[in-house]
Amino acid sequence: MKLLNDTIQKITKTDDAARASAKKRLDQLTMPHWALGRLMDLAMDLAAITGQSPPPVARKTIVTMAADHGVTEEGVSLYPQEVTAQMVYNFVNGGAGVNALSGLTNAKVIVVDMGVKADLGPLEEKIMHKKIRAGSGNIGNGPAMTKEEAIRSVEAGIEVAQELASSTDVFGTGDMGIGNTTPSSAIIAAITGVRPEEITGRGTGIDDDQLSRKVGIVKRALEVNQVDKDDGLDVLAKVGGFEIGGIAGLILGAASMNRPALVDGFISTAGALVAATIAPLAKDYMIASHLSVEPGHSAMLGALGKRAYLDMNMRLGEGTGSALAMVLVEAASKVLTEIATFEEAAVSQSDK
Amino acid sequence: MKLLNDTIQKITKTDDAARASAKKRLDQLTMPHWALGRLMDLAMDLAAITGQSPPPVARKTIVTMAADHGVTEEGVSLYPQEVTAQMVYNFVNGGAGVNALSGLTNAKVIVVDMGVKADLGPLEEKIMHKKIRAGSGNIGNGPAMTKEEAIRSVEAGIEVAQELASSTDVFGTGDMGIGNTTPSSAIIAAITGVRPEEITGRGTGIDDDQLSRKVGIVKRALEVNQVDKDDGLDVLAKVGGFEIGGIAGLILGAASMNRPALVDGFISTAGALVAATIAPLAKDYMIASHLSVEPGHSAMLGALGKRAYLDMNMRLGEGTGSALAMVLVEAASKVLTEIATFEEAAVSQSDK
Repeated sequence: MKLLNDTIQKITKTDDAARASAKKRLDQLTMPHWALGRLMDLAMDLAAITGQSPPPVARKTIVTMAADHGVTEEGVSLYPQEVTAQMVYNFVNGGAGVNALSGLTNAKVIVVDMGVKADLGPLEEKIMHKKIRAGSGNIGNGPAMTKEEAIRSVEAGIEVAQELASSTDVFGTGDMGIGNTTPSSAIIAAITGVRPEEITGRGTGIDDDQLSRKVGIVKRALEVNQVDKDDGLDVLAKVGGFEIGGIAGLILGAASMNRPALVDGFISTAGALVAATIAPLAKDYMIASHLSVEPGHSAMLGALGKRAYLDMNMRLGEGTGSALAMVLVEAASKVLTEIATFEEAAVSQSDK
Repeated sequence: MKLLNDTIQKITKTDDAARASAKKRLDQLTMPHWALGRLMDLAMDLAAITGQSPPPVARKTIVTMAADHGVTEEGVSLYPQEVTAQMVYNFVNGGAGVNALSGLTNAKVIVVDMGVKADLGPLEEKIMHKKIRAGSGNIGNGPAMTKEEAIRSVEAGIEVAQELASSTDVFGTGDMGIGNTTPSSAIIAAITGVRPEEITGRGTGIDDDQLSRKVGIVKRALEVNQVDKDDGLDVLAKVGGFEIGGIAGLILGAASMNRPALVDGFISTAGALVAATIAPLAKDYMIASHLSVEPGHSAMLGALGKRAYLDMNMRLGEGTGSALAMVLVEAASKVLTEIATFEEAAVSQSDK
């Protein structure tokens, strides 16, 4: 608990002076005022987060947190549980969606075993090993994990952020875990009070009958577990998952070191909600990358006060949304550093 | 007129076999079905347009068409007319928004003088010289240009596409022309019949009084000119502009050579509407990059049956939206070529 408490203490307000410095230059660029809209907003946010204008954004790392979920025994996914481990091998071999899209900005992809139900020891240094336990409990019957395990999963995420910090300017989150839209739906329902029917979606592509069963599981998880919605660690322990705790920790770790954390999609945003419940100031270090097809995602982003940058009908996770949004970070940086001001380019200004 | 007619003849339906071939691979990728959504739609479209799967997309060129507009004498812009020429120099010197954002994919930026009211001869081979006339007429008082000039501007755009074809897989459009949101608003009003009040916006950032005057100019342009909405060349001649004709020609030229044309923002979409009116099949070669802040843009895209990929609150033009969307073209290509299939990665498939 010491690492978590120390990390929370280090999360401070973002830097108004750096934000103002970025704004001053953006106001003078050779274009109608603020004509690059959200790229300019993002450039200001990156300056405020990092405390520097221009913000350092060259070194990008996407962290894909993997874990298994006991709730898969309820038939909430189209895919068998062993796919989680198989996909970890696919990531390591460079064959997954996040590998392809991370190449757009040469972002590194780091895979972390947070609780995969398979021995990933043979992968040695090809992944980071932070396994809390081989799969969480079935949230339909009881808690996903103990409070102690919840703390350890968040602290493992913080450790990952710290271990990668010397080679990372911008973090992106990602997830892999068959069954993990179910705990994510339970987290958003628990924290915001929205009815499970409204925020539970088709995940990997289940049909109407399976969706109805999944909604039932989310409801049962909330009844059985009696979550304290103001206690992020209680939410995580009762209806979360190990990779979701790892994502929360990664974001808290990034925030404590003044680094931006791109939040991927539905599962990552569940982790972000847990992080924001633990340390509200962490919200200002989060950048919402894309709007997922999952119906609960917009409610989650609303609860965080965020608007996603991209709406591409995506629902893959892994960090694919983060990978695409890394391009916008790169674009925002270019806007701040590569466009001439009216004075520099000798272009006439507007008459007002 | 021969070049235009020949070009129209060469625009054929896109390739269903290449589309099906792309779909077949995308259906087998290691992810829930179609989980990368619009990136996968785009990959299919690119295959259909180019007739190849995977589609060639490595060499990207953004063409920024520049011209002046007589209607600036009505005070429709915050900026003086000389800014058009000054911005051409800014493009050549690499200091504008499109230069910065084209760097995301190493796209080339080619500037074309379609009708700037300044002697750009001194720029020699740094730009392409296709000047039809030094600035179009004031559409509030009469036609922008003669029918002959309209044909020449479209044919100049076709020539640009043909001259760049040997070094270009994917074209992106762009524009520069102080005052050019006014003719663009008139074009969309003329073609779709939507009232000018609903589709005329603030352009460079004019206030309420100026906006009301601008709406009046668009109405007057439509009354004075009596446009034949089914004749793209008549629309262009009466309420268009030289760079808008060039954009229409560039798109027609790209389509005739089975190359995709990313359509930038409000002004480029006006050019796309002219192109679609001249040759309806050209629509299938257009890719709508972003949704502009200009209120008429969504009506324009609707008329083309397109949905923009990005919504970034941008309103700059130049090709900045095309530059950002080039990244999505790159991403779509990576999805098609760099992600493993279930079989290749030995990942278990879904149970249905």
